[in-house]
Amino acid sequence: MSDKPIVVIAFGGNALIQKGQDGTAEQQMENIKAPMQKVVALAPDYRVVISHGNGPQVGNLLLQQEATTEVAEMPIPLLGAMTQGQIGYMMETALERSLAEAGLERNFLTVITMVEVDAKDPLFENPTKPIGPFYSEEEAAKKTYKMVVTDKGMRRVIASPMPIGIVPHREIKQLVDMDWIVICSGGGGIPVVADGKGGHLGADAVIDKDLASSLLAREIGADLFVVATDVAGACINWGKPDQEQLRKVSFAEMQRHVDEGQFPAGSMGPKVGALMSFVEATGKRAIICNLDEIEAALAGDAGTEIGK
Amino acid sequence: MSDKPIVVIAFGGNALIQKGQDGTAEQQMENIKAPMQKVVALAPDYRVVISHGNGPQVGNLLLQQEATTEVAEMPIPLLGAMTQGQIGYMMETALERSLAEAGLERNFLTVITMVEVDAKDPLFENPTKPIGPFYSEEEAAKKTYKMVVTDKGMRRVIASPMPIGIVPHREIKQLVDMDWIVICSGGGGIPVVADGKGGHLGADAVIDKDLASSLLAREIGADLFVVATDVAGACINWGKPDQEQLRKVSFAEMQRHVDEGQFPAGSMGPKVGALMSFVEATGKRAIICNLDEIEAALAGDAGTEIGK
Repeated sequence: MSDKPIVVIAFGGNALIQKGQDGTAEQQMENIKAPMQKVVALAPDYRVVISHGNGPQVGNLLLQQEATTEVAEMPIPLLGAMTQGQIGYMMETALERSLAEAGLERNFLTVITMVEVDAKDPLFENPTKPIGPFYSEEEAAKKTYKMVVTDKGMRRVIASPMPIGIVPHREIKQLVDMDWIVICSGGGGIPVVADGKGGHLGADAVIDKDLASSLLAREIGADLFVVATDVAGACINWGKPDQEQLRKVSFAEMQRHVDEGQFPAGSMGPKVGALMSFVEATGKRAIICNLDEIEAALAGDAGTEIGK
Repeated sequence: MSDKPIVVIAFGGNALIQKGQDGTAEQQMENIKAPMQKVVALAPDYRVVISHGNGPQVGNLLLQQEATTEVAEMPIPLLGAMTQGQIGYMMETALERSLAEAGLERNFLTVITMVEVDAKDPLFENPTKPIGPFYSEEEAAKKTYKMVVTDKGMRRVIASPMPIGIVPHREIKQLVDMDWIVICSGGGGIPVVADGKGGHLGADAVIDKDLASSLLAREIGADLFVVATDVAGACINWGKPDQEQLRKVSFAEMQRHVDEGQFPAGSMGPKVGALMSFVEATGKRAIICNLDEIEAALAGDAGTEIGK
């Protein structure tokens, strides 16, 4: 069993699809190379666990399956499972090549990951997360889902309940202890609820990938939790003349910024929340940084780091 | 490390979608329950590795992605990866429930599986495997793929090269040695070719799932290889008054039947070929049987068994 520190890195959507791109397979395969090179660069010193988003990929599957009535529509959890396979494969090909380039031998694996949510989570009562295509009012009237009005038309909204358990956390932990590079909890995981008989049932929901990754990091005893995204770190006074990127802050200091409402609910807020819950539960470090600066951030030279 | 015998079971498409069904998620989830109960019933006595087909699932993704130009089309290997995630998740939920019902604790995992083919395989020169939607001649003229004429219109054909290596065979073997139930090589695997630099590139191809499963069984040192399908076994004199299902046959006897052309190229032929190559390489038993009779077949009371 390896005793290197365990780092969980949650990659943002920009690891696969960059601004202005259509998200072709070629683009995604190209984009994912650099992040996987960074993972390989960390592998000698860390046991690395990778999670990732899947918003655009699930959105595309929803668009496609609504474009024809010839094929049975798959529910949201199954679409999530598909994107875990898809993105896992793309990451694995890049990992395999990067490992070969680095002359490093390391097993790697994608874990199709169910993430449990509570069927009684009050967030199920009030779905707020927009998902899938835009509809005209006429089209929307034919659908049974809850819809909201947006600038571009009606859109389905879905619940985003809190993750309460990474179903295969024991399996992931064992693989990590063998120093395999593990890709898991993609898209926040496949949302499931307990069936009361020792199994799980898919739930129409999406789980925030940073919250699921934070839970994953806690459940497998990670030493470090990193959110790798498209910004350099967390800022206070965002968009104001005195905007300032935080570098190293204590949990108490970060909590004050949270209480002041420094981090918007739709973007930085949940990321900071995910980092904070890891630090609060473990007393260990959590970092948010730009995808390109993971190594510098782990060395303490970039990103925003929340410590005890 | 467990010393129970290792069985690789290749499940046919009927494990997920039965004749006359549309293949809704509900149907697939329901159908997969019984096969996974059988896997759990075998688990105390065998280390079980599961593979499966994905033809209808990939076909549906192809239909859906051709139904809209709004979304970038994904190439065949990525669609294969998606179905591995999708089907792996469905199998896992059924496995989890069956394990709980049986009061058995066992780790299980889906391995997203690349399967290597030779870029110089002559079968690439002559694609013959029909895939995806039917087109009018006008629609077909706009496509760049090779097409064939069928009763229902033009249809894309794709190469089905020979599998030469299960890329994650070491990982699968390690998991099997830990007595985890492993789902892998779905749909014959994600077709890839070596990139000459230690990595792999996706290839537009489909790999016969029984041939890939046979290779998998050899590469992980399986003791038994089972093709679980929708017929009771292999028959000689098929469709004639003296049709007879073979029960237990030696490799030499089966080879005579093969040489006589007893098994049609499009259906039983490749399955028998997959079983034969396992027996030839290992000297161990290979079985083809109905999905419902796996336990009886392993006990020697059903199916067609080829021995040394």
